Amino acid sequence: MLPLHLQPQSHVPLYIQLRDQLRALVHAGDLRPGDRIPASRELANMLGVHRTTVANAYAELESEGLIQGHVGRGTFIKGNGNGLKITPPAPPVLNGNGGLRWELLFADERGEEILSRLTASAPEDALSFVIARPADEFFPIEELQTCVNAVLRREATDVLNLGPSDGYPPLKEALLEMLHHDGIAAKDENLLITDGCQQSLDLISKAFVRPGDSVIMENPTYPGAVAIFHGARARCLGVPMKTQAEPGTPLGLDLEALEATLAANRVKLILLTPDFQNPTGTSMPLASRRKVLELAGRYQVPVVEDHIYARLHAREERIPSLKHLDRSNLVIQIDSFSKVAFPGLRVGWIVAPATAIERLRVVKQTTDLHTDQLAQATLAEFLRRGLFTKHLAKMRKIYTSRLAALDEALRKHMPEGTRWTRPEGGMCLWLELPLGFDASELLIHVKERGVLFAPGRYFYVQSPLPNTLRLGFASLDEKQIARGVATLAELLKIEMRKRQRGVRRAERSRVALV
Amino acid sequence: MLPLHLQPQSHVPLYIQLRDQLRALVHAGDLRPGDRIPASRELANMLGVHRTTVANAYAELESEGLIQGHVGRGTFIKGNGNGLKITPPAPPVLNGNGGLRWELLFADERGEEILSRLTASAPEDALSFVIARPADEFFPIEELQTCVNAVLRREATDVLNLGPSDGYPPLKEALLEMLHHDGIAAKDENLLITDGCQQSLDLISKAFVRPGDSVIMENPTYPGAVAIFHGARARCLGVPMKTQAEPGTPLGLDLEALEATLAANRVKLILLTPDFQNPTGTSMPLASRRKVLELAGRYQVPVVEDHIYARLHAREERIPSLKHLDRSNLVIQIDSFSKVAFPGLRVGWIVAPATAIERLRVVKQTTDLHTDQLAQATLAEFLRRGLFTKHLAKMRKIYTSRLAALDEALRKHMPEGTRWTRPEGGMCLWLELPLGFDASELLIHVKERGVLFAPGRYFYVQSPLPNTLRLGFASLDEKQIARGVATLAELLKIEMRKRQRGVRRAERSRVALV
Repeated sequence: MLPLHLQPQSHVPLYIQLRDQLRALVHAGDLRPGDRIPASRELANMLGVHRTTVANAYAELESEGLIQGHVGRGTFIKGNGNGLKITPPAPPVLNGNGGLRWELLFADERGEEILSRLTASAPEDALSFVIARPADEFFPIEELQTCVNAVLRREATDVLNLGPSDGYPPLKEALLEMLHHDGIAAKDENLLITDGCQQSLDLISKAFVRPGDSVIMENPTYPGAVAIFHGARARCLGVPMKTQAEPGTPLGLDLEALEATLAANRVKLILLTPDFQNPTGTSMPLASRRKVLELAGRYQVPVVEDHIYARLHAREERIPSLKHLDRSNLVIQIDSFSKVAFPGLRVGWIVAPATAIERLRVVKQTTDLHTDQLAQATLAEFLRRGLFTKHLAKMRKIYTSRLAALDEALRKHMPEGTRWTRPEGGMCLWLELPLGFDASELLIHVKERGVLFAPGRYFYVQSPLPNTLRLGFASLDEKQIARGVATLAELLKIEMRKRQRGVRRAERSRVALV
Repeated sequence: MLPLHLQPQSHVPLYIQLRDQLRALVHAGDLRPGDRIPASRELANMLGVHRTTVANAYAELESEGLIQGHVGRGTFIKGNGNGLKITPPAPPVLNGNGGLRWELLFADERGEEILSRLTASAPEDALSFVIARPADEFFPIEELQTCVNAVLRREATDVLNLGPSDGYPPLKEALLEMLHHDGIAAKDENLLITDGCQQSLDLISKAFVRPGDSVIMENPTYPGAVAIFHGARARCLGVPMKTQAEPGTPLGLDLEALEATLAANRVKLILLTPDFQNPTGTSMPLASRRKVLELAGRYQVPVVEDHIYARLHAREERIPSLKHLDRSNLVIQIDSFSKVAFPGLRVGWIVAPATAIERLRVVKQTTDLHTDQLAQATLAEFLRRGLFTKHLAKMRKIYTSRLAALDEALRKHMPEGTRWTRPEGGMCLWLELPLGFDASELLIHVKERGVLFAPGRYFYVQSPLPNTLRLGFASLDEKQIARGVATLAELLKIEMRKRQRGVRRAERSRVALV
């Protein structure tokens, strides 16, 4: 019998209590890899809670890689390794007795994991809408290999040596040319190379945020941004995203809420993803962009523009970026090769006024000296040879077709009462189930059928809507998308029918009681 | 006439006041690139301060790359770019009017630069003892190219895709094998790949340090460590290093001071570099290592062991590392390929108890997702093929010979009253000038003769000794070392003679006044 004690009166949700207690039992060694834990229905009965409570706790633990289901056998503790085999048998000195209680030494109570762990627990052959990442079957590997070799033949000693913290000069040069082509009049002093957008956010938080400072974010938003600013002990203020067109209010960031938040708080930074926002896929109209800049100027708050998806536009024309519209030095634009080329090469960049870049350069230096130069030099060569432009054009077509397939499949299969955003590019789409449905619960069923998606609540700064979910479509082909959506719709319909029967039963019993 | 106002009563040293005011004039645009500034003697007269004050301020500004001397022409404002030429003429939108006063938005008053800027301002052909970095003429470029190509032929899709935050599995496997060979019984769960030791320190600070926490460091120490923990708003407590053998007290960390500091403060972490410490080059004897672990266990404080130089031992036998001696899970060991292979590939690792690694893995994920995988995969191949072992053996011989040449040159040229450490490996040696001499001032003269070193005060957490300096010897050959030391000694002797004449004059005038 497991020593679990849930407090129904607590402000902590029951499934969180359950999750944390189970996790603690694993960490304490009371539950060990291979141990079987009760089925959710069984444990729900034992604890006197709803089955969903247990299912939600299990879903969390599964996404953390702590437990694993085996069809027909039950659910088991999985252990904390990721299955890597080590050849020499190692004596367990590092886990010996005595010593420190490390858990008590950490700076914060618990870690904030970014979404990627959700995929870690997925079967190899699952249809995964979880991650917004490039279609790897189109990586131009030969071209890249040519670039690496050119670089190592020509400038190996420079590449392998310590380099400048602001970036490898040939890459800066190539990027500046690309920016000029985009209409951004950046100079060398306006550009800093980083390890990608996640690091750019980390550097920005270090350069600007003191503990207790307030930062405005979209709600929902990219969880990696929340993790960074929470880690920096900032107050993260979520401003709602309008994901459905309504007369009179534009799509994207709620501008009235933005203004109200700016008026009510001393805000240090505003973080926005105007193009194909992660997770909602919405884009901010031009008028909203101008309004954001006007407000930022009035309240003297810098705007961090996440430009990571902007080059993946389905239509020819693009809405100008905030950086492009910025006439008052308000915008720090962050961008990366991760979505448009190779996520495994960790290279991104920041475009900002020289004073901000100079500060960020020092922060970059104290953070990790500089970005890997083999990756920087290789990407510089990839840009210079025109291979990036070519690759991007190709990928835009592929993603546009996949996005169309997704929208079509949703139209075809989704029951009434669901709605979704209409992204015009990027890598993800946001779906709302009928009110009262919990995407985390649906995920449990859908996963059994080999389909995965990201429940919406992972993306909220505050006030999560449990009926939302994100579909990343870029790494699945049209057939997979169709199949995945059909499965998703089928299981949702089953849940809706169950719910309806339940409602009818409840109505009948209410009638009987009156 | 420059608007400079020095406050002799202030607790801020005069040269720091002067440096900051000059820097502010540059940032405000009152001094522009190409402007000539007065010679140090001239400005000293104008301000009524000692010439050394101005010389020190200028040295700082020069090391920041803000000013530059031209032989026979004077000293000039250099501007903030690094001279990179951008082809398309860019309209200066990013420096337009209006907008934010970015300086007021930064989280801290001023940036802490790590040493590397000192080299940025050096002429191309200078003999530089400044940086502790590998001899790049021995980079095994062809072998590395073979590794890159093998990796891209075999596993390009994995390498270019998003990867696990704890590291690219083949590299983890190869490193664990190396660790087992070293006698460290680490498992996969004990190992985290990072972007190098600088990032490892950043991750450790994020995982463990809350604002106001106390961290013990060696004094002097690696400035990058101080920058990280200052940035995390920790109290950095320096424990003195014994750099000269005295009867009864071992070389390296002052153990009595360590114990006293632990007793008087609630310390969160102890940071040590037991082997060939940067900057002093000293190594901690075995008995001291055991004592450190005993104290750490008694006070329940984790020890971060910087192992970055340890593989570069001149003698065959090695003193066991703290990690090797650790029987109580107290030690987090950080290590990297930067000193023993290629600093341009940003790859390092952390070995620690599984609980600490799991926490650091989450922090790593929220910091930059994961380390560049092309570099990781290439280094894995480099290890697997036995190329690392071969390269390391070769470099150890080369550095041992250079270290011997440095010691020999110092014995031959240095005047009485100077003393230096006797490292048995690593990349740097610590030199003490006779009391009363300032290494920063000597650097000004030495630089004019094309020789550079790092003044000792950059390395102090507190109470800097201005008569100290660091000589990094790894990247200079035996002839360069001999020539550099001869120049250094020659100019020091000139300064000593001047000083002696000054003393005699002072004695005479004192006689005259009595």
